[in-house]
Amino acid sequence: MAKRIGAGTIRLETPVKIAAAAAVGSRKEKEGPLGPEFDQTIEDSSLGEKSWEKAETKMQQLAVAIALQKAQITPDRVDVLLGGDLLNQCIATAYAARELARPFLGLYGACSTMAESLTLAALLVESGAARNALAVTSSHFCSSERQFRFPLNYGGVRTPTAQHTATAAGAALVAPFGKISIREVCIGRVVDLGVTDPNNMGAAMAPAAWDTLCRFFADTGTAPADYDKIITGDLAQVGSDLLVRLAAGEGCDLRPRYTDCGLMLYDRESQKVDAGASGCGCSAAVMCAHFFPAMQRGEYRNVLFLATGALMSPTACQQGESIPGVAHLLHLTAEG
Amino acid sequence: MAKRIGAGTIRLETPVKIAAAAAVGSRKEKEGPLGPEFDQTIEDSSLGEKSWEKAETKMQQLAVAIALQKAQITPDRVDVLLGGDLLNQCIATAYAARELARPFLGLYGACSTMAESLTLAALLVESGAARNALAVTSSHFCSSERQFRFPLNYGGVRTPTAQHTATAAGAALVAPFGKISIREVCIGRVVDLGVTDPNNMGAAMAPAAWDTLCRFFADTGTAPADYDKIITGDLAQVGSDLLVRLAAGEGCDLRPRYTDCGLMLYDRESQKVDAGASGCGCSAAVMCAHFFPAMQRGEYRNVLFLATGALMSPTACQQGESIPGVAHLLHLTAEG
Repeated sequence: MAKRIGAGTIRLETPVKIAAAAAVGSRKEKEGPLGPEFDQTIEDSSLGEKSWEKAETKMQQLAVAIALQKAQITPDRVDVLLGGDLLNQCIATAYAARELARPFLGLYGACSTMAESLTLAALLVESGAARNALAVTSSHFCSSERQFRFPLNYGGVRTPTAQHTATAAGAALVAPFGKISIREVCIGRVVDLGVTDPNNMGAAMAPAAWDTLCRFFADTGTAPADYDKIITGDLAQVGSDLLVRLAAGEGCDLRPRYTDCGLMLYDRESQKVDAGASGCGCSAAVMCAHFFPAMQRGEYRNVLFLATGALMSPTACQQGESIPGVAHLLHLTAEG
Repeated sequence: MAKRIGAGTIRLETPVKIAAAAAVGSRKEKEGPLGPEFDQTIEDSSLGEKSWEKAETKMQQLAVAIALQKAQITPDRVDVLLGGDLLNQCIATAYAARELARPFLGLYGACSTMAESLTLAALLVESGAARNALAVTSSHFCSSERQFRFPLNYGGVRTPTAQHTATAAGAALVAPFGKISIREVCIGRVVDLGVTDPNNMGAAMAPAAWDTLCRFFADTGTAPADYDKIITGDLAQVGSDLLVRLAAGEGCDLRPRYTDCGLMLYDRESQKVDAGASGCGCSAAVMCAHFFPAMQRGEYRNVLFLATGALMSPTACQQGESIPGVAHLLHLTAEG
């Protein structure tokens, strides 16, 4: 049984593990600091497909195939696939799920998707509803630019607060076996402090990250010093700074433990990514390429992973709406 | 604990109930055969908002408020809100979730969303992860036409296979108390038989409905005659006929028990809705306005509800992709 503790944290009392994970990226991710840790990077970001959307589907399929291979299970043993992406109607994932032909639950959590899919995967495995649950997500710089901003050929000028959408996919298999345990999860609330600039997603999402983190600390009676690492998804420089300030304002010093996947994926100076990386694929790839393997090697024992999502659309922004954020959290431990 | 039976059906061994449900519609839904059963219908489909998208959010908020009122619980007792809609980035739901300010899991299942959200709500309540889980979804004719087809003012001609998107929202509270039990759930697989006509969603979705239904019958060793009603979401005339034919082809006669929400919401003759109704709000409203109350009154004791979704986008269709479908199923019983 899952056990509710405090106001909103869910403790998993049956062992639920991350059995295997895989990350796929493109040339830009290969050239970044984590490049060598990716399972596969593809030079041509079209992946030989006729559209960016189809390329994104293919990245998911690759990540899924590698994760299953690492876990040494065949696709027919996946009881449920949980995933989503940033594209309208989440088509990258829907077409990847068509290929896998396993029970599928489509999610929309914007850039929080990896944390959302891992959370639900963990809860379904814990309850016995699934033995193996596969969490997947992706983003693609070119499909995202076309859909959310401008066609690439337009050559739109970017603001310094803008983030570069990762061309990457991550997949993780949640099962009763593996070296990384999912101990607790905390589902995020939608938080909106009124940011209306779609080129400043970090600022829009930081309050949601703090809302979830703060509730989790209160529910569990823990503090940042209790964890080896506290990892956010893609707040990048502007959002990370804001999260640290929000926490400091309530007497909580995150800095000694805190890092953000959006600040790790690229070299901001040489790779010209403005405030950092973003997209569902950012935290999915950084967790699957770097942190999960590092935990499996025992480099980190006790980690909080919380990915944030900006739940807006270009239509909502054009209608003057502000940008709501959400952040889902997982507490992960690795055996000694 | 949830118990897996057969290849993919999940039996809930702890009691999980639908405690309350509410349906909201517009004038067209009011004028349909189920009009008097709606909790609220609003004459002006803008609901006094400045955009169709905002009107859709407001419909969800109304449905949520009425469902909570009926269940006699305050919003702060909702442990998790699960929902989604058809709009790009599911904004109708995201902005409704912002208002409720409770933990939120965004879903994308196209028109299968009510079945997907009820399925996950049931599994989370069953596992103890949530005491009260609220499932919500909506669709709006005007926001859907603008996004998926043509702006209304364009006056595009509709094909006879086209369906009319319901302007409706439904919300249901899943809890340990109530008169309707959720006994089993079966998560759908993505099925695509190659239909490419976005004006014929029924045909695209029917194979997914049969895939799920067929797996459920095999897993549980049951047949259509074991149920009072077998209710699909929004296959409408074309898709329903196809589902009945697909089942007949495998020696299964659905007809005596079968109905489709897309054929019930409107009077097809007088209301000019071509093949019938569609949209996430269609099955959500028909279940919440008609079937759940009828089950609570004891009129149906043993029901299968499966909602289908077409997991495409205009972009995918323009790129020549076919339309994949998915269908999630719930087995519901009412006490005598």
